Amino acid sequence: MSKKTKVKAAILIIGNEILSGRTQDTNTGTIALWLNSIGVKVQEVRIIPDIEETIIDTVNLLRKKNDYVFTTGGIGPTHDDITAESISKAFKVKYEIHKEAFKILESYYKPGEFNEGRQKMIWMPQNAKLILNPTSGAPGFNIENVFCLPGVPSILKSMLGGLKNSIVGGDPILSHTISLRTVESEIANSLTLVQDNNKDVEIGSYPFFQAGKLGVSIVIRSEDQNKINICSTQILEFVNKKNIEVVERN
Amino acid sequence: MSKKTKVKAAILIIGNEILSGRTQDTNTGTIALWLNSIGVKVQEVRIIPDIEETIIDTVNLLRKKNDYVFTTGGIGPTHDDITAESISKAFKVKYEIHKEAFKILESYYKPGEFNEGRQKMIWMPQNAKLILNPTSGAPGFNIENVFCLPGVPSILKSMLGGLKNSIVGGDPILSHTISLRTVESEIANSLTLVQDNNKDVEIGSYPFFQAGKLGVSIVIRSEDQNKINICSTQILEFVNKKNIEVVERN
Repeated sequence: MSKKTKVKAAILIIGNEILSGRTQDTNTGTIALWLNSIGVKVQEVRIIPDIEETIIDTVNLLRKKNDYVFTTGGIGPTHDDITAESISKAFKVKYEIHKEAFKILESYYKPGEFNEGRQKMIWMPQNAKLILNPTSGAPGFNIENVFCLPGVPSILKSMLGGLKNSIVGGDPILSHTISLRTVESEIANSLTLVQDNNKDVEIGSYPFFQAGKLGVSIVIRSEDQNKINICSTQILEFVNKKNIEVVERN
Repeated sequence: MSKKTKVKAAILIIGNEILSGRTQDTNTGTIALWLNSIGVKVQEVRIIPDIEETIIDTVNLLRKKNDYVFTTGGIGPTHDDITAESISKAFKVKYEIHKEAFKILESYYKPGEFNEGRQKMIWMPQNAKLILNPTSGAPGFNIENVFCLPGVPSILKSMLGGLKNSIVGGDPILSHTISLRTVESEIANSLTLVQDNNKDVEIGSYPFFQAGKLGVSIVIRSEDQNKINICSTQILEFVNKKNIEVVERN
């Protein structure tokens, strides 16, 4: 198997409504699962308010530390949508009308409906590449390694597919989950031994409560299927010895 | 009304399972809503992996920038639960058995059930104060302005009430929501004017889709009810002029 470099990403959720607890963020999960599937690992997520200086500083920090940065939120038509202008300032480029975006929205709306509010959505950092929006017209944009997506989850979801060719991932991150009818404390020591024997594999332990019964899901993650298989075997060995029921493997 | 200083907090979500997209974080919303109600404003949220160095660095940065830091996750019995030890290192204090936690768990479990795995949960930073856990025994802990809570949402929820006396909040952050049957672009310019006239009030605009119909919720947030009222009046003025239906106010 060819050894590729690990490809790292950060997700930046922009929006007061998430920080106040009013809106539950689900975009992190959507983006993270998608990135995993194309071999990109999310290193960190930050949720920040709609404050220009904060957006500029955070984008500039994250884009240097990561191969890719994905932002969500703040690209709509209202006064609190300041992502595009802030990103322009972060990259020290002009914030200007994007001709292709203008054409897309002009033909998307009925005559007379492409009003001043909506025209705000065609202002972008100079030379930004568009991220097409099959759901509601208004595109996102990409500048260098930063990809700016909208905050509305269904719209964001519909735009990810079109991004695939812009992202160069590493080996996909594979995972195997073994769900057991037990409690964490029962397997903690044995699991530590397996982790110690397989240091470059990520082993997580997550208690669950399902249909009135307690259980633990052990999640094994690696780019290498062989390493996952070795860990699985070692885990099932102690599981069998302890007479613990395996509820599910997937 | 007495003017208090604003009280700021950060939330630090610790766990690979959130970054991989396997688990949807809901603790941010729970903690943020609760903090709002006691006058503490969440400035930022970070989600980071179970890596000791990352936990240490992030906690040390956030605790200096904020009045309070709330962490979730990583305080269970398995090998990937490294929050307590990492926090000890962040504060450069011993990681040791907490006598009170020992007593609590010893009496919580049946004789013989307080095994080695569970005993990991009584190891904490020296002189940590306990955060009691009415749901499942194992306490969280507090050291200086950092409060460490578990990752399981139902358990975390049950522990917040007991924290109220440890947190000194500012004036509660009040909000008023006006939901309109319109689209954002229709009101964007008028709303910008209201925001410009009321710079110290936070006005957010959030499109929604409910029962097959589009709408926009305008959320006005401030510690000062008078300021919220003034904004509401100005918003309703342009809403009436434009003949837009008010769906709900709360």
